Amino acid sequence: MNAPIAPTHTLPCDVLITAAVVVTQNDARAVLRDAALAITGGVITAIGPRAELAARYTPVETIALPEAMLLPGLVNTHTHAAMTLFRGLCDDAPLSVWLSEHIWPAEAKLTPEAVRLGTQLACAEMLASGTTCFLDAYLFVDAVADAAQAAGLRAVLCQGVFDIENAGFKTADAALASAGALADRLAGEALLRPAIFPHAVYTCRRATLERCAAFAKERGTLLSTHAAETARENDDCLAANGQRVIPYLHSLGMLGPQTLLAHGVALDAADLTLLAATGTAVSHCPKSNMKLASGIAPVHALRTAGVTVGLGTDGAASNNALNLFSEMETAALLQKVASNDPTALKAGAALDMATRDGAQALGWPELGRLEVGAPADLCALDLTRPQLHPCFDPISDAVYAANGGEVVLTMVAGHVLFRDGAFLTMDYAALRRNFAQAASHLTAR
Amino acid sequence: MNAPIAPTHTLPCDVLITAAVVVTQNDARAVLRDAALAITGGVITAIGPRAELAARYTPVETIALPEAMLLPGLVNTHTHAAMTLFRGLCDDAPLSVWLSEHIWPAEAKLTPEAVRLGTQLACAEMLASGTTCFLDAYLFVDAVADAAQAAGLRAVLCQGVFDIENAGFKTADAALASAGALADRLAGEALLRPAIFPHAVYTCRRATLERCAAFAKERGTLLSTHAAETARENDDCLAANGQRVIPYLHSLGMLGPQTLLAHGVALDAADLTLLAATGTAVSHCPKSNMKLASGIAPVHALRTAGVTVGLGTDGAASNNALNLFSEMETAALLQKVASNDPTALKAGAALDMATRDGAQALGWPELGRLEVGAPADLCALDLTRPQLHPCFDPISDAVYAANGGEVVLTMVAGHVLFRDGAFLTMDYAALRRNFAQAASHLTAR
Repeated sequence: MNAPIAPTHTLPCDVLITAAVVVTQNDARAVLRDAALAITGGVITAIGPRAELAARYTPVETIALPEAMLLPGLVNTHTHAAMTLFRGLCDDAPLSVWLSEHIWPAEAKLTPEAVRLGTQLACAEMLASGTTCFLDAYLFVDAVADAAQAAGLRAVLCQGVFDIENAGFKTADAALASAGALADRLAGEALLRPAIFPHAVYTCRRATLERCAAFAKERGTLLSTHAAETARENDDCLAANGQRVIPYLHSLGMLGPQTLLAHGVALDAADLTLLAATGTAVSHCPKSNMKLASGIAPVHALRTAGVTVGLGTDGAASNNALNLFSEMETAALLQKVASNDPTALKAGAALDMATRDGAQALGWPELGRLEVGAPADLCALDLTRPQLHPCFDPISDAVYAANGGEVVLTMVAGHVLFRDGAFLTMDYAALRRNFAQAASHLTAR
Repeated sequence: MNAPIAPTHTLPCDVLITAAVVVTQNDARAVLRDAALAITGGVITAIGPRAELAARYTPVETIALPEAMLLPGLVNTHTHAAMTLFRGLCDDAPLSVWLSEHIWPAEAKLTPEAVRLGTQLACAEMLASGTTCFLDAYLFVDAVADAAQAAGLRAVLCQGVFDIENAGFKTADAALASAGALADRLAGEALLRPAIFPHAVYTCRRATLERCAAFAKERGTLLSTHAAETARENDDCLAANGQRVIPYLHSLGMLGPQTLLAHGVALDAADLTLLAATGTAVSHCPKSNMKLASGIAPVHALRTAGVTVGLGTDGAASNNALNLFSEMETAALLQKVASNDPTALKAGAALDMATRDGAQALGWPELGRLEVGAPADLCALDLTRPQLHPCFDPISDAVYAANGGEVVLTMVAGHVLFRDGAFLTMDYAALRRNFAQAASHLTAR
């Protein structure tokens, strides 16, 4: 018998990243120990045992993380990033006081530059807690795009549309025109995608909602909106339009596989059926729903009905963090206590929501998993931290034991954007100064 | 007029610690900016404006934290520290499966050395997330004491008592004898106090509970027990003893200002009245209660009734972290959504529970506040982290935005035990190795 033939040459790759544990989130949900990923052109070209890949590849750069756990980069399906500017401005107050006495007066003073700074700080916060992709809906979307682009994060950038005059636009017409310009600007961008976000059924006229739905169809973008966040929203919609929120949106042609509804708290059985039948996705924001006392979304029932559910942080003014590790844990714990069933929404389901399901909800299904052909978006947790011992079950540890502060590396499309506390695409010290000035100016009385 | 007289001499102190923000948790709940603490003999001797204290004191050591927020060290009123050994061993399972198929078989193999290692890792985890004092109830209390003593944490160390044979003891008699020996051992210790912990009404006979109550009275220790964790516990107690848990404990002389009940989930109005009337305290463990689907404790009602409520993490096998920052946030969010009221359990109340109220619940009321005469137990959060911007409201940020990973310094009795990721009282690398071995041995099939 011949000895096995040694490889006569190795393959090139841009980056070889090795780790103690790799949580792939592939279809088999494989968790690999002592493994590696080869990355070229921002895409994963191989994944497998470390020794095997080290022998097969000659990388331009090797990133050795022998005491880290790699996970797909987390996907935040609902936020208003620049609201970091208003974090801690007002908490523990009734919604009406929070909005009318604090948030709206401050938002009236918003400028594109303030939004850019607020979004950039949000990008730093998301990177430091392992998030690589986010859906944003706010004002001054060009400033949001500038910030995301500079930071290097992946994002679905929504043009917000209201029938209420705001700092960004006087009319819905103007907002829709801006949505078109945004879609033009982002054509050909690899990391940024445009979308449209009519604010809610209670702030947009029927015709405006219909025009947004038509825009999404014509331009092939995601359509997202706040929906059924509270029971009152259904009552008001019933009074104004003769239907609950979900059937009303359906009657306007707004449900479907291109649609992502934020919150989805106050849903009845017929709503669930309609969402499942139309392939509409939901962004679950458990901490925001708890903090504002909106209610508990029927996530377990939604998932059982076959609805794709992602996770969202909502804005920092109603959370108050943009940390999906905390959101995963809260989502799982809340479903258990709400359903009186410790087996409801297991750790694996929560991680699915924060990764592959969230990616699916954004219409970007190749994200949220570490497998050959997928974009190299990932984060690494430092396994030397006490809370990640003894590491019997890496997925349980990521969901229930990690707090997000263990993230030591975050990569988007093969580029390291955050490492060991440093933000590699930002002048973070300058950002802190400018952000503080902007926040204090906006909130000065 | 004469010019003000310059101080002719300064005062000595051991440590002068300066910070951007000091959350005192004193009676006025003062939050100071650009402030300092002088510490001598492990006690705070002055607190006030930085410039003033810097001029007044000549410290042996200065710790300058110009970009940090100081808080009182957090107080964990209920944990089973060594259960870090079983973190992630089994999650998302019914209680019976979790206990009988996973936890009990592993606990049967426990040794004092494993408990020492598990507790030491727990001490590391608590220090790294700002906890300076904990109540522990588990087996092999001498090993727990060794670990806490070596780490330098403050602790109330409970001798667990059962009428079920376990790895520690064959009989309640033997456990009670050990409780006496523990109290003797800890006499004169500044940081460690003994206590007694009959496990629960469903694992201890009436006579055993009465003997524990008598022990606490005789030795002047805290008496703690699991109580009313689930509705079923009340049903079973009613069937076995003709009373719900709280009145049953009262009939045995177990309620009073020296008593701390862990959980207190399934409480009716009469229970609340009885707890308030007797001055009995409650340790609220929101994440454990959610994860095990035990229910939602009526914390807002307890506090309104005048019951002292502290926070606890419970053990790492049912949480799965020992992180009181996460626990504070969850406590506040859970009360809001449970009561449909965003103003319920405000940030300040959650911080009180994790600091001064928890200290009161442990019968150690001088802890949990930064004021002259109080022990110098504190932690520092790194304000350069994105999630702690813009810092409009430090207490809101500590409760809602921080995840615990921002802790850069933890001090007990004037000694720095954790700083910038390093555990100053441990050989942490050796601990990690030995802990991993012990955990894997205990759980091997």
